[in-house]
Amino acid sequence: MITKSTIKYIQSLQQKKARDENKQFIAEGPKVVNELLQQNIFNCTAIYCTENWVQNFSTSFSNSDASKFFIIKDFELDKISAFSIANQVLAVFDIKNNPNNIDYKNKLTLVLDDIQDPGNLGTIIRTADWFGIKNIICSKNSTDYFSPKVVQSTMASLGRVNVDYTDLANFLNQYPQVKSYAAVLSGKDVNSIQKVTEGFLVFGNESKGISPEIMKIANKKITIPKIGEAESLNIAIAAGIIMHQLTK
Amino acid sequence: MITKSTIKYIQSLQQKKARDENKQFIAEGPKVVNELLQQNIFNCTAIYCTENWVQNFSTSFSNSDASKFFIIKDFELDKISAFSIANQVLAVFDIKNNPNNIDYKNKLTLVLDDIQDPGNLGTIIRTADWFGIKNIICSKNSTDYFSPKVVQSTMASLGRVNVDYTDLANFLNQYPQVKSYAAVLSGKDVNSIQKVTEGFLVFGNESKGISPEIMKIANKKITIPKIGEAESLNIAIAAGIIMHQLTK
Repeated sequence: MITKSTIKYIQSLQQKKARDENKQFIAEGPKVVNELLQQNIFNCTAIYCTENWVQNFSTSFSNSDASKFFIIKDFELDKISAFSIANQVLAVFDIKNNPNNIDYKNKLTLVLDDIQDPGNLGTIIRTADWFGIKNIICSKNSTDYFSPKVVQSTMASLGRVNVDYTDLANFLNQYPQVKSYAAVLSGKDVNSIQKVTEGFLVFGNESKGISPEIMKIANKKITIPKIGEAESLNIAIAAGIIMHQLTK
Repeated sequence: MITKSTIKYIQSLQQKKARDENKQFIAEGPKVVNELLQQNIFNCTAIYCTENWVQNFSTSFSNSDASKFFIIKDFELDKISAFSIANQVLAVFDIKNNPNNIDYKNKLTLVLDDIQDPGNLGTIIRTADWFGIKNIICSKNSTDYFSPKVVQSTMASLGRVNVDYTDLANFLNQYPQVKSYAAVLSGKDVNSIQKVTEGFLVFGNESKGISPEIMKIANKKITIPKIGEAESLNIAIAAGIIMHQLTK
């Protein structure tokens, strides 16, 4: 059984405004929820789950968490889920603040200029986590990384990658000595670039690309050579290929 | 004005069964529709669009197509759209048959074992088109490539890449002399492999990976080395990185 006010609260967390006010977000499905619980990076305050999930998965979590478990019916889970098909479990976590004073020297950092698609942002976070990139800076208009679809696509990588939102031009101008590589359609062949251990990798909006203001600062233009005929690559694919190429 | 029976017909094309029966599919949004019309690979039978699209885009198409244009209201477009937010134009195209007797020697071909997510399949088609890969073979249980979400994610690359559905084991066994590379989590470092001009690149289901039956045949196991901590890569990202690595 789940109260009306709880349903309303959890539904509200689908919106950025409520997430910011309450400093909480939701994650769904056994794969993502189980891994987030095991990582223990985000504090979990409640787990709404079906009998099925309890039988299959919950035994691996400590008994001290028992007070957080609420076993509910499928139709109740459907009500609080952000997805058209609910998947056994939904958990509420506290948003944690990013560490202060991250040093962006001597490492690779992704810089995302107005990424709009939650699936793209989530996949980029997951891929960054695979390639050991720990920090992502997004422009203020980028999609919110605690939205249900982003959380879903990160596959639980979101706790291991710091994602921050700021004015990109101001940010990049603070690090004039760190090279900025802009992924564009006509730049230097990325295959000719050796492993990079320090730099900003800049990717732009799905349809508009990188804004002119940022292009002026990110002056090392790089390109994945085209062999066939597609007009462009999906931005998460381009980011994945460039992360692979520059970290190997 | 759009009739009830037309609305019903177009809505039915969101389902594979109706697409198969009528040999038609829908594409939406200026970017995809305009490019498909310009490519002229699929025969277009009707264009349902708002006044806005007509003013901005339709002038680039021949007047002989005038009989196909139906200018409708936003609320009518919302009714026939497969998406929660309709986007100016929806066009109906004839599905074309793949060419017969494709020769899979001397080229790279993607083999997809039960890809379920339409966005992943669409993105893989678009990426294959970028890297000049012309053929994709899917297992029979893979998601249908003429579904609205796949068409959307291909960004109009679907006309330039042949996608076929068949029994993968039978298919691969027909080409014992062509090497099959299976993307797995513990195989040979893909970075150690030189450019490949002939072969099957095999990718598996989003959660289960490649099935045991196919793994027996696809015996060259390759892996994108992990530097960080993510459990896995999104399958479209992995496919993109491997296509880039093996074609450069």
